[in-house]
Amino acid sequence: MFLHKSILVHDVRVQNPDPVFAEKLLEQYGGATGELTAALTYLTQSYHTENAGIRDMLQDIGTEELGHLEVIALLVEQHTNKASANLRDKAYQSTLFAIRGPGPHLVDSKGLTWDARYVNEGGHTVRDLRANIAAEAGALNTYEQLIAMTTDDGTREALRHLATREVSHTHMFMEALKTLNGLDQPMFGDLKPDDTVNLYFNMSSGPGADERGPWNREPAFQYIADPLQHEMQTSKGRAGNEMAPAEPHLDRSRASSR
Amino acid sequence: MFLHKSILVHDVRVQNPDPVFAEKLLEQYGGATGELTAALTYLTQSYHTENAGIRDMLQDIGTEELGHLEVIALLVEQHTNKASANLRDKAYQSTLFAIRGPGPHLVDSKGLTWDARYVNEGGHTVRDLRANIAAEAGALNTYEQLIAMTTDDGTREALRHLATREVSHTHMFMEALKTLNGLDQPMFGDLKPDDTVNLYFNMSSGPGADERGPWNREPAFQYIADPLQHEMQTSKGRAGNEMAPAEPHLDRSRASSR
Amino acid sequence: MFLHKSILVHDVRVQNPDPVFAEKLLEQYGGATGELTAALTYLTQSYHTENAGIRDMLQDIGTEELGHLEVIALLVEQHTNKASANLRDKAYQSTLFAIRGPGPHLVDSKGLTWDARYVNEGGHTVRDLRANIAAEAGALNTYEQLIAMTTDDGTREALRHLATREVSHTHMFMEALKTLNGLDQPMFGDLKPDDTVNLYFNMSSGPGADERGPWNREPAFQYIADPLQHEMQTSKGRAGNEMAPAEPHLDRSRASSR
Amino acid sequence: MFLHKSILVHDVRVQNPDPVFAEKLLEQYGGATGELTAALTYLTQSYHTENAGIRDMLQDIGTEELGHLEVIALLVEQHTNKASANLRDKAYQSTLFAIRGPGPHLVDSKGLTWDARYVNEGGHTVRDLRANIAAEAGALNTYEQLIAMTTDDGTREALRHLATREVSHTHMFMEALKTLNGLDQPMFGDLKPDDTVNLYFNMSSGPGADERGPWNREPAFQYIADPLQHEMQTSKGRAGNEMAPAEPHLDRSRASSR
Amino acid sequence: MFLHKSILVHDVRVQNPDPVFAEKLLEQYGGATGELTAALTYLTQSYHTENAGIRDMLQDIGTEELGHLEVIALLVEQHTNKASANLRDKAYQSTLFAIRGPGPHLVDSKGLTWDARYVNEGGHTVRDLRANIAAEAGALNTYEQLIAMTTDDGTREALRHLATREVSHTHMFMEALKTLNGLDQPMFGDLKPDDTVNLYFNMSSGPGADERGPWNREPAFQYIADPLQHEMQTSKGRAGNEMAPAEPHLDRSRASSR
Amino acid sequence: MFLHKSILVHDVRVQNPDPVFAEKLLEQYGGATGELTAALTYLTQSYHTENAGIRDMLQDIGTEELGHLEVIALLVEQHTNKASANLRDKAYQSTLFAIRGPGPHLVDSKGLTWDARYVNEGGHTVRDLRANIAAEAGALNTYEQLIAMTTDDGTREALRHLATREVSHTHMFMEALKTLNGLDQPMFGDLKPDDTVNLYFNMSSGPGADERGPWNREPAFQYIADPLQHEMQTSKGRAGNEMAPAEPHLDRSRASSR
Repeated sequence: MFLHKSILVHDVRVQNPDPVFAEKLLEQYGGATGELTAALTYLTQSYHTENAGIRDMLQDIGTEELGHLEVIALLVEQHTNKASANLRDKAYQSTLFAIRGPGPHLVDSKGLTWDARYVNEGGHTVRDLRANIAAEAGALNTYEQLIAMTTDDGTREALRHLATREVSHTHMFMEALKTLNGLDQPMFGDLKPDDTVNLYFNMSSGPGADERGPWNREPAFQYIADPLQHEMQTSKGRAGNEMAPAEPHLDRSRASSR
Repeated sequence: MFLHKSILVHDVRVQNPDPVFAEKLLEQYGGATGELTAALTYLTQSYHTENAGIRDMLQDIGTEELGHLEVIALLVEQHTNKASANLRDKAYQSTLFAIRGPGPHLVDSKGLTWDARYVNEGGHTVRDLRANIAAEAGALNTYEQLIAMTTDDGTREALRHLATREVSHTHMFMEALKTLNGLDQPMFGDLKPDDTVNLYFNMSSGPGADERGPWNREPAFQYIADPLQHEMQTSKGRAGNEMAPAEPHLDRSRASSR
Repeated sequence: MFLHKSILVHDVRVQNPDPVFAEKLLEQYGGATGELTAALTYLTQSYHTENAGIRDMLQDIGTEELGHLEVIALLVEQHTNKASANLRDKAYQSTLFAIRGPGPHLVDSKGLTWDARYVNEGGHTVRDLRANIAAEAGALNTYEQLIAMTTDDGTREALRHLATREVSHTHMFMEALKTLNGLDQPMFGDLKPDDTVNLYFNMSSGPGADERGPWNREPAFQYIADPLQHEMQTSKGRAGNEMAPAEPHLDRSRASSR
Repeated sequence: MFLHKSILVHDVRVQNPDPVFAEKLLEQYGGATGELTAALTYLTQSYHTENAGIRDMLQDIGTEELGHLEVIALLVEQHTNKASANLRDKAYQSTLFAIRGPGPHLVDSKGLTWDARYVNEGGHTVRDLRANIAAEAGALNTYEQLIAMTTDDGTREALRHLATREVSHTHMFMEALKTLNGLDQPMFGDLKPDDTVNLYFNMSSGPGADERGPWNREPAFQYIADPLQHEMQTSKGRAGNEMAPAEPHLDRSRASSR
Repeated sequence: MFLHKSILVHDVRVQNPDPVFAEKLLEQYGGATGELTAALTYLTQSYHTENAGIRDMLQDIGTEELGHLEVIALLVEQHTNKASANLRDKAYQSTLFAIRGPGPHLVDSKGLTWDARYVNEGGHTVRDLRANIAAEAGALNTYEQLIAMTTDDGTREALRHLATREVSHTHMFMEALKTLNGLDQPMFGDLKPDDTVNLYFNMSSGPGADERGPWNREPAFQYIADPLQHEMQTSKGRAGNEMAPAEPHLDRSRASSR
Repeated sequence: MFLHKSILVHDVRVQNPDPVFAEKLLEQYGGATGELTAALTYLTQSYHTENAGIRDMLQDIGTEELGHLEVIALLVEQHTNKASANLRDKAYQSTLFAIRGPGPHLVDSKGLTWDARYVNEGGHTVRDLRANIAAEAGALNTYEQLIAMTTDDGTREALRHLATREVSHTHMFMEALKTLNGLDQPMFGDLKPDDTVNLYFNMSSGPGADERGPWNREPAFQYIADPLQHEMQTSKGRAGNEMAPAEPHLDRSRASSR
């Protein structure tokens, strides 16, 4: 059961309403990196998480994000409400609020509707927590851009709080992931990897495209400089017919006209 | 520039074609966790990445994923092509291939079209790499489920290879993230967090909903057992009027009938 | 601010888990007529509603719907969780849970992701309340179908409660709409209708297609049996050139090849 | 069978072409509240409506809406066609017409494609008619905003006609709904409501969030001021264990690492 | 203006209702290759077409397609209506009609909503007509598959008629395209092609991937067997620095941490 | 297997970065007519094409389009990268890059995400090739508009090359289609057309709406001036009851309240 309290998680005090900025703020109401994505992702995940502690954490954070969504909503409302009184206002007319009314709408800053394709969840808690760290990173990045785009102090303070909490949540997810050994160990689940697990394939080559770094260096990785050559040798050793893989999709049994 | 070679990154040898399983395989061709998501995410990211090493890594891996997409495509083709010869086949008729033709289509296992909302990228390399670790986790999880659902050895071998490479890529992304201090440090970018950064808000309470763990324990976190109480006290100290935050969205200037 | 309590708005006690039915239940988790549509519609509306009483009602009901969403979530979880233990279970394998894991996902019963295009809101409270009555009607209708499709008593009881509440909410919205004179008066807003406002155009004609009823009968309506004839006469009187309306979209100034 | 006649349902005479306004007009061509939504909703509904009179009404109105779609199309064409002759025109260049060509496109004012998720229909005529009243309210609201945004008399006259007809259709749908007892009676269909049907749950509380009105007042409604308390008492009387509802989603049978 | 007549363009007489087949038929109601795509594409195109003859043709065919949409609608209705009387019918329950009601819905055979992304139009009549020939080819192909999947004679006859008309329309579009010199001449519009216009780049190479045919044979085409080599030589001659193209996206001016 | 080479298929040298133009360029990165649509369409088609020559051609061209996508990506990067250094730049702030970061994103010029609904493929090679000719026409048309909108020489040269290649590909597809007899013959596949195949129905009539041309002229076509009359006579001769087709969707077996 959810309850709503008429106390905001942070003050919303817009001094200089700006409907054009409000349109950009929609990115965090109905956009990919917004609070709705966060809230629905964590709550949905919680319903299949068996670990009681992590389930509770997901519901704590998911519920907090609903309160963040409300803060964004009221920021948008304050940036558009007064402006809407003057329907001939040029800036207001240039925004989607002129047609759709003041206040928030479930779209991003370009008018694209929120869609659950933004939600990454399911099947395994390690996967869910990694998804959450990624989601928070997107949210934090967007908040940074938005803060840079407004000079209204009330707006900046509110956004700074929301951005701060993304950092807090990231920290929590990282701690939880550590308990599952998932923060710095690539593997999870039951897969038995094959013998290519430590190979790095240099698929992109040419000037400026053969860089080396910890992500492709020995001893963690074996660098395959010429993957085509490697694959031809491997398949030869394996099957005696290195070209076979290229052709089995041919089937002449269908109608000849095709 | 891209080149295509008629050598597959892994053998595709389906012994027992099964169009119903092929429909499920579409999850990795045109689904959220599929190879197309991976390829387009990494390549798109590479075009704004300034770090030359990481940019090259993204292009190496993104290009490899295009080869994985091809492996899925040929698996689907082999699972549907022969079946399609017998249009009255019951199992084949139950799949979308009966109407749309054999071979892969850019949809997931339920027929939903691939959409770029699946792609998480932009603005900062730490954000991109975290997104990639999440993407790989989804892919790995899906591959595990798919492997469990088929008994065809050729299919299982190919899927095992693709799943293995998701582990490899996760490893690479983790190593790259370490060089940016982003694997286990929550913060990145220029934000100055406010003083709530270490608070844990217990927004979900009641029996079985007040669990404690490393994600909300001192000294890393300060646990706020009653966030409503906390917020009321905080706002009182701050502004002398604790209820203010709940109301500023009221604007009586619009038509009274609304 | 939202709070979550570990008390459900209704018991969730599934006796006979049925993953195939769970897939249908997703219609009310991530489908067009589901609880998420209701919750997000009412909460979003509340942020632009100036009438304090109606705003509060929208937040009361919107918050209740979040609790309903949770009930659906747990129903889906219980219908899929045990089934998922046996990955070779035929029925389970036929559902999307086999690939995406047990528990709810933000899609409808056919796997289509939830999208904010389902949300109807903005600009005027009469419009919002009419939208809500329509939304509740869809939800009620879906619940009736779902109840008819399961014999599990625990599931039926929970769904009956959720359906009942849709009736309750409809009642509330109707009462609120009455206070704005919007329940049985077609007009709202500032439009000055033109003189066609009481005309009924019989655009569909022929045997069985010229029915009469209160919706096209005098004195409320004037029935125009032959709208083409009517339009030709009207435009003649008006402009002296009855055919003009058909052609003004011709503009020969672009390239002749087009 | 449909026939098309080269007579418009209303004159289209644009004196001052304005491609920026034309882009906004797309809201009624390919947008949520537009004529396409109306036409396809009513026609689709008619194909499952058994009541002969209402079916005919839906086809009459649905067909009229196709004629309205055409009026919007020609308005857009006239606002963009001449402008397109001067490709260097700044205002024209800022619109989507510069890339996609003059004339209407099946998108809304922000370039989002029309999608059938906008269509609310199915299962019951009461549900359909309520959906239609909601659809017309959205359309009327959008037309009002559009009329306020242009000073071109020809455009305003045409839009006023289309808006007027939305009022007319609303009136018709209301009359039809009365014949099914659906305009002011919340219930329809076969549901047996449970004993909560008249309860109003005050889920949102705190200063300014406990308003009373006809929608939550006795005798029609019983006001539950503290729903959490109410639910705990209710579940206690019912099962002897008030906390049970919070936990049944726990299933420890899956892998412990999850 | 559109008129509707209660005469169908073809008899609809289903003898053996089959809701599972009806679900597949939705492909032509709300699917990519369906009648709605055709109708809306041609009508939308007509509103920007300046050639009076072709504009009229588009409106003739677009209007005919609306009548086809109706035929599909009634086929679906007849295949589902009687079945719906028995809600416990297993086959009916497996379809989306069980939840959404009998009759057509604006989705494809997998439940994906129709979206205007299916519509290809704009900017030039040659482009539009080519799009239409492609659209008709998809429709024809789908009809063929559907006819192969049913044994109901009434259904087959109706589908055969609709498929036939796709051939007719293709013929008409081809004739119209000939008048614009667009059927077999690749070029249209104002582009001045560069000197690569006749080159064929052999981007895919290896065993079984270097086929020759009229599409890459002299004298129409010059076959570039090794495009990488070709590009390196070309860029060398042009700028004195063949590697430059790979790097200009580097800009070190942003924060070094990225 | 795909390989990536750090050589571009065409120089990318932007002299005057313009983020507003870059936003328009996204139309060819993640838009309907863009390079991603082309690449994924041709590659996906290749996996079900049995004709070895055409399959290879599809892979040659599909791979080339991946290289074109890269050229668009780098154009967007160069147009936005430097601009992004000055976050207060007004023009930059008006674009989606301000929030989402410099470089390309998988959306069109209006911010709509790329979706596989743009891809037309499946079932028959004639259908695929016709789809491709249509896709190329859209791409060419968009390039022409984009070239007209910029004065940057480096950008114009690169776009001219990409546009040129669309002409080249069109030429190749036409040649391939000729080998299947599909360029100027409407029919393909196994359909036995009914006797309406040569009829032209004049569904749109009235002043200016009865044009004649090669697409409706004898001897290729028989012109039916009054299709309603024609249909009534046809159905009379056929069944003795000309009105039957209008009614069979009536089924009174469902609940009378509907």
